[in-house]
Amino acid sequence: MEYTALQIAGFINGSVEGDEQAKVNAICRIEEGRQGALSFLGNLKYEEFIYNTEASIVLVNQDFKPAAPIKSTLIRVPNAYEAFTALLKAIDNRPKRSGVEASSFVHPSVQIPENVYIGAFAYISEGVVLGKGTQIYPHCYIGDGTQIGENCTLFSGVKVYHNCQIGNSVTLHSGVVIGADGFGFSNQESGFDKVPQIGNVILEDNVEIGANTTVDRATIGSTIIRKGVKLDNLIMIGHNVEVGEHTVMAAQVGIAGSTKIGKKCMFGGQVGVAGHITVAENSIIGAQAGVNSSIRKPDGIWLGGPAMEIGGFRKSAILFKNLPQMEQRLRDLERKAKGE
Amino acid sequence: MEYTALQIAGFINGSVEGDEQAKVNAICRIEEGRQGALSFLGNLKYEEFIYNTEASIVLVNQDFKPAAPIKSTLIRVPNAYEAFTALLKAIDNRPKRSGVEASSFVHPSVQIPENVYIGAFAYISEGVVLGKGTQIYPHCYIGDGTQIGENCTLFSGVKVYHNCQIGNSVTLHSGVVIGADGFGFSNQESGFDKVPQIGNVILEDNVEIGANTTVDRATIGSTIIRKGVKLDNLIMIGHNVEVGEHTVMAAQVGIAGSTKIGKKCMFGGQVGVAGHITVAENSIIGAQAGVNSSIRKPDGIWLGGPAMEIGGFRKSAILFKNLPQMEQRLRDLERKAKGE
Amino acid sequence: MEYTALQIAGFINGSVEGDEQAKVNAICRIEEGRQGALSFLGNLKYEEFIYNTEASIVLVNQDFKPAAPIKSTLIRVPNAYEAFTALLKAIDNRPKRSGVEASSFVHPSVQIPENVYIGAFAYISEGVVLGKGTQIYPHCYIGDGTQIGENCTLFSGVKVYHNCQIGNSVTLHSGVVIGADGFGFSNQESGFDKVPQIGNVILEDNVEIGANTTVDRATIGSTIIRKGVKLDNLIMIGHNVEVGEHTVMAAQVGIAGSTKIGKKCMFGGQVGVAGHITVAENSIIGAQAGVNSSIRKPDGIWLGGPAMEIGGFRKSAILFKNLPQMEQRLRDLERKAKGE
Repeated sequence: MEYTALQIAGFINGSVEGDEQAKVNAICRIEEGRQGALSFLGNLKYEEFIYNTEASIVLVNQDFKPAAPIKSTLIRVPNAYEAFTALLKAIDNRPKRSGVEASSFVHPSVQIPENVYIGAFAYISEGVVLGKGTQIYPHCYIGDGTQIGENCTLFSGVKVYHNCQIGNSVTLHSGVVIGADGFGFSNQESGFDKVPQIGNVILEDNVEIGANTTVDRATIGSTIIRKGVKLDNLIMIGHNVEVGEHTVMAAQVGIAGSTKIGKKCMFGGQVGVAGHITVAENSIIGAQAGVNSSIRKPDGIWLGGPAMEIGGFRKSAILFKNLPQMEQRLRDLERKAKGE
Repeated sequence: MEYTALQIAGFINGSVEGDEQAKVNAICRIEEGRQGALSFLGNLKYEEFIYNTEASIVLVNQDFKPAAPIKSTLIRVPNAYEAFTALLKAIDNRPKRSGVEASSFVHPSVQIPENVYIGAFAYISEGVVLGKGTQIYPHCYIGDGTQIGENCTLFSGVKVYHNCQIGNSVTLHSGVVIGADGFGFSNQESGFDKVPQIGNVILEDNVEIGANTTVDRATIGSTIIRKGVKLDNLIMIGHNVEVGEHTVMAAQVGIAGSTKIGKKCMFGGQVGVAGHITVAENSIIGAQAGVNSSIRKPDGIWLGGPAMEIGGFRKSAILFKNLPQMEQRLRDLERKAKGE
Repeated sequence: MEYTALQIAGFINGSVEGDEQAKVNAICRIEEGRQGALSFLGNLKYEEFIYNTEASIVLVNQDFKPAAPIKSTLIRVPNAYEAFTALLKAIDNRPKRSGVEASSFVHPSVQIPENVYIGAFAYISEGVVLGKGTQIYPHCYIGDGTQIGENCTLFSGVKVYHNCQIGNSVTLHSGVVIGADGFGFSNQESGFDKVPQIGNVILEDNVEIGANTTVDRATIGSTIIRKGVKLDNLIMIGHNVEVGEHTVMAAQVGIAGSTKIGKKCMFGGQVGVAGHITVAENSIIGAQAGVNSSIRKPDGIWLGGPAMEIGGFRKSAILFKNLPQMEQRLRDLERKAKGE
């Protein structure tokens, strides 16, 4: 399918600057611009590319002022990134699968609502409840009594243990494990003795979880991921943790047991948070930080391990780099003091 | 099922303080206490909750002295956490699965002892040996010639490569990979050349391994996880590593190749240990620490990266936080020395 | 099979020192030497073991000068490690599987070239292209339209989403996830809104990827892993990242979105790299380092977080350890300055 600049501007409520009949049939990154493709300039970090891009059409912010001539036809919109996202959605027409494929295992107790997809080699245990429109790809395992809402997508190889609860419009990527036993052992003379983990996991609506991330079941009660939370790949959420609504975490974050994370927090990659503490809402935790005590003040930015507020951390980090010079200054003073 | 305080006290050898006929039919965390439920107070960090909890019964330590009146009936025991664990075990009656489900693949050379469960879509290769009472959930893969002992549980999607040895009463959670090739390549002019990994992995008795953790096979010889070791989720154990008995590691720890970890060590989350070194027994390694040389002294506590003993690390970490002040003091002295 | 020292020396072009008729039928690590086994001494860190080893034959470097008598027969070669690797390859005769096992799912549109193995419970979607000699183990999932080259090995449970491209001689270990959605969400009033990820992943020839590592698909365009790259276990490669040819990364590394890593880099374990930056070729990044801005100078060695060049980092790290002493020296000077 080919579209003109005018057609696209109409779709995203933008205004054309240049050739209204410029045609595109593809989308590309601005640094890989090519004729017949549409791109966008959101982050001005990439501005240099717009002056040489071969992209036929570029979406730009309303207030973008070019510093040099641009070959491409521009479409101005209030927010180029959002307009671009809207276009991506329009063309992301991956067909939804449906139907129950042969070679799947569905326990006779399970009802199949409309528009459900169950792929070959998926295993749906006794007493599972599935909502309509939910897609279970091949090799998924759903344990006894687990409930999954409507319009969820579980990509190939997701494992959900027994008695968990998953809301509506939840997306779980391949390799996600929900509800494995929490890490609970009591230290005995003879070795570590397993503490049964009889709780479960609750994932609320609109949660998305990246590949190979694990969310452990609670010892008692529930490990809870609130609505709208987005977790990237290879994250570990320990037992009895609660992650507040609309919080996002980048890859490889680890949250130890019984910790409570507030809403609308943002975690960089590889952050570690100790167990049995709380992190206040709207906290931003920088990549690789180590949070070992509660953060009670909301809206802060925290870096380093042990985590410090950003201002202090940056100052200390610069001085760490300059420690050899500081030590030299100290030595000079000592020499002077000795009268050398 | 409903039980009275008296009945429970009898079961765990405790003494009732309050209503001997108080009835419960559920278990809960003390901060989520509700009528008809039993809870416990072990860690005094949670003491505040006991004065307001709605839990009908609370297990407490023999020597617990309340600072205020408590509504709940108390049961005093020598160790509240252990008594609680004993109760959890009594009610954790998840039925054991058994039998070989249709749609599994079991090579004709494999014998099925009594009480074994093999789930649908599990794949048991040639020459595999299984012990009685072992449960292999759906989507597990067991490679040629691998031996698995008695009463093991491999949850859905565990992968064990060929020729590995797994002891008795071993639990592997979903997504665990045992025996993938170690990371061995020799640096050639033309690029990296694979070094065949012809060794295996040995897991001794009573090992438990969390979701998505990987234990690589040895180049030659064996990667060995000794008896009673407990590994949390998303851990990486490199080739030819040995982990000593009863050592526990929290999530996302990484141990590089050929390193030997002593017995009864405790590792916090996200710890990294370099290859070809040793860590002495009873070492405690704090979360996110980086151990880049051997720890030869047993019983120490190590923090930071590069790891330092706890006393020194704590002092340095506080001074790191105060570096700006230290620098200011240095500047003041310099000014004075100049006679300003 | 049993071989004499003379036969082995012939195979690897070495010269025998000792009993030419010494016989071996096994390979072992030098510290686990036993009669009838062959070992090698490459890294002199292990030299002490050669004087007591029971190994019947030991491969050593041409120029190795023993400091004490050695019982074993020696075979001298230019590079003992490489000769040993050559022997490992000769004996690593794991049989290649072939044929399409019953209980696999292969979409009718898919052609099966010669010597392909498709294990039971593997799922090959519509439009997939497979090269000859490629082995797809049980429980693998290959999404619509994905192309896989010749002589690849996908171990049990690998998941490759739709429309990805995999070159020749690529090895993917169990639990690898290729092409899951990149972590792209736009921050809206109502919560985070998913940005469709319509790009793909390209793995070039001779790439090997360790267990449970994830490589996300691009938002638009491709996430690219260049030829000869070796990734260890549990690594996260974000969307639109490019990893240059012959770069190797140890376990648990994380590379955030749109970052470009040069060729022939070496990353230690647990390294984190921020998004939208570049790392120059031949860079060595030490374990657990955090790279938060571009490294433009090639051939450097970088440690710490934020990452610093090795020389500076080492000096600062030693002074960090000595901060309490530095602070004491500062205090002493302050006392003197006050005339105490």
